Amino acid sequence: MKHLALTLLLSILMTIPQAMAQQPVWALVIHGGAGNVTPGRITPDKQVQYEAKLLEALAAGQNVLAGGGTAMDAAIAAVQIMEESPLFNSGKGAVFNADGKNELDASVMDGRTGKAGAVAGVTVIRSPVEAARRVMDSSAHVMLSGRGAEAFAREQGLELVEPSYFYTDESWQEYMKVKERLEKEGRKGTVGAVALDKEGNLAAATSTGGMTFKKYGRIGDSPVIGAGTYASNESCAVSCTGHGEYFIRNSVAYDVSARMLYLGETVDQAATYIINEKLKSQGGTGGLIALDKNGNISTPFNTPGMFRGFVTSASGPEVKMFR
Amino acid sequence: MKHLALTLLLSILMTIPQAMAQQPVWALVIHGGAGNVTPGRITPDKQVQYEAKLLEALAAGQNVLAGGGTAMDAAIAAVQIMEESPLFNSGKGAVFNADGKNELDASVMDGRTGKAGAVAGVTVIRSPVEAARRVMDSSAHVMLSGRGAEAFAREQGLELVEPSYFYTDESWQEYMKVKERLEKEGRKGTVGAVALDKEGNLAAATSTGGMTFKKYGRIGDSPVIGAGTYASNESCAVSCTGHGEYFIRNSVAYDVSARMLYLGETVDQAATYIINEKLKSQGGTGGLIALDKNGNISTPFNTPGMFRGFVTSASGPEVKMFR
Repeated sequence: MKHLALTLLLSILMTIPQAMAQQPVWALVIHGGAGNVTPGRITPDKQVQYEAKLLEALAAGQNVLAGGGTAMDAAIAAVQIMEESPLFNSGKGAVFNADGKNELDASVMDGRTGKAGAVAGVTVIRSPVEAARRVMDSSAHVMLSGRGAEAFAREQGLELVEPSYFYTDESWQEYMKVKERLEKEGRKGTVGAVALDKEGNLAAATSTGGMTFKKYGRIGDSPVIGAGTYASNESCAVSCTGHGEYFIRNSVAYDVSARMLYLGETVDQAATYIINEKLKSQGGTGGLIALDKNGNISTPFNTPGMFRGFVTSASGPEVKMFR
Repeated sequence: MKHLALTLLLSILMTIPQAMAQQPVWALVIHGGAGNVTPGRITPDKQVQYEAKLLEALAAGQNVLAGGGTAMDAAIAAVQIMEESPLFNSGKGAVFNADGKNELDASVMDGRTGKAGAVAGVTVIRSPVEAARRVMDSSAHVMLSGRGAEAFAREQGLELVEPSYFYTDESWQEYMKVKERLEKEGRKGTVGAVALDKEGNLAAATSTGGMTFKKYGRIGDSPVIGAGTYASNESCAVSCTGHGEYFIRNSVAYDVSARMLYLGETVDQAATYIINEKLKSQGGTGGLIALDKNGNISTPFNTPGMFRGFVTSASGPEVKMFR
């Protein structure tokens, strides 16, 4: 009984600072990919460009959330800014596959309804994340792929582009370097956003061009609900970036939620354990962004760096790329 | 202290019968799909055919396991018997999509290594489950799709067939009925197997033709690791069948493992809760087969019936289709 009383007292004491701290009424966290992001590999000029674009993405989501919009709209608005930029491996900046083509993946999940949508291997949809949202909202399915997903997007009136729209010099140089085995991996990262709105709803969105020089219609974790993307109002919203195969095998995005609900871990305990213990011990490189229903943020990564940023009703915006 | 002593005593008492009961040294569980499987919808003649084919699949896996083969080989052997049969919605018997074509999905996961493989939307690979195993063993990826997956299978020397190989009268009749809106859903089911070998290794495999009249390159849960298939030597092996979108959104296969590891539930508690409480409350129909590392079996379904069977070193073979 003594032990129980002490435990109770401790947990009450530990709860007070949290309860007293101002909880944000809305929050937004974004990532632009994890990887070999170090000051030595990114010029100061590029750093400025990345910071500006991450801030622009945060501002786009902030506009939605501060105006009372939904977490889903905010996450998509933030991701779309990054999709339109050549700086990231999503949308416009998508990397090239082994055939010298761009094949994009994206997914979204709504924490309020538990609904989700994803597209995999699409080549002419300007905003794959918007296509993923339409799959969620306007189809009976969760995951559509290839030509079929594009036919669906066409029916939905989404903007289609020529495959050449996704050509960027930087992605092409990356492709050539990987092709000539001058580099083992590409440099540009998957993008994602997680948001909490004023109604207390969580949402997550992820968009990517996949791995440079990927072959065989390879599908990574980004369009796989439970691996690269997950959201539940009961627990958290998660968007991942990294070596997708490890994220699929470990159901990483869902596991953050499972550890919170089943083990009683905080969002940061769960996310940090998965990235820095579980994945790291397997050799799985990458990171994730996670946001719980109280606006608590976690952004662990086991790579040298990860493009990331957050803004809430109480603090920010803030962007970082290195440790 | 009194409470602690009592708890200890109780747990010791509860452990004794389990330890005394003979644990199987190997085990195999299979399913041939869940759905509107009732005596009224299946003729006695068809029942005999299904029973014989399920027993044949069990025997194929049993041969492997009793001979000291691996859980993965056994699961694949069992699934391949069903893929070769027109009775199930996988391989030969795959249903038709909206375009009147057959698009097949499959996945496997090895509980010893945590490795996994999957193919989605393939049209000319005779044994999709074998292709999934090759993705796991011989590629750097987990999930390959469409033409790319087929090119990979060709390089691997797998048997390719004309798309017409997958034509069966029954699947075509189903297609026409769904097309003419005479039926809401097809009747034939996804197949799967989970196995435990003498070394204590678990494996899971799933293979399907997807939903009759599926559109837009729809990908269901069967090729999604963590949704339709999961295996870990730490916990269990799982193969799912049912309305795939619900299985993806709920990361069903991984969740069985998460509930066992994080909540301390038995395989049957975890599987039954997910199928009969969580999914059912959302309107998600289907079932799963699960096997833990001690050979305990669970086969819950919230549909009228599910084709299923098991055999272990201690009991069986036994096949069932109705409640």
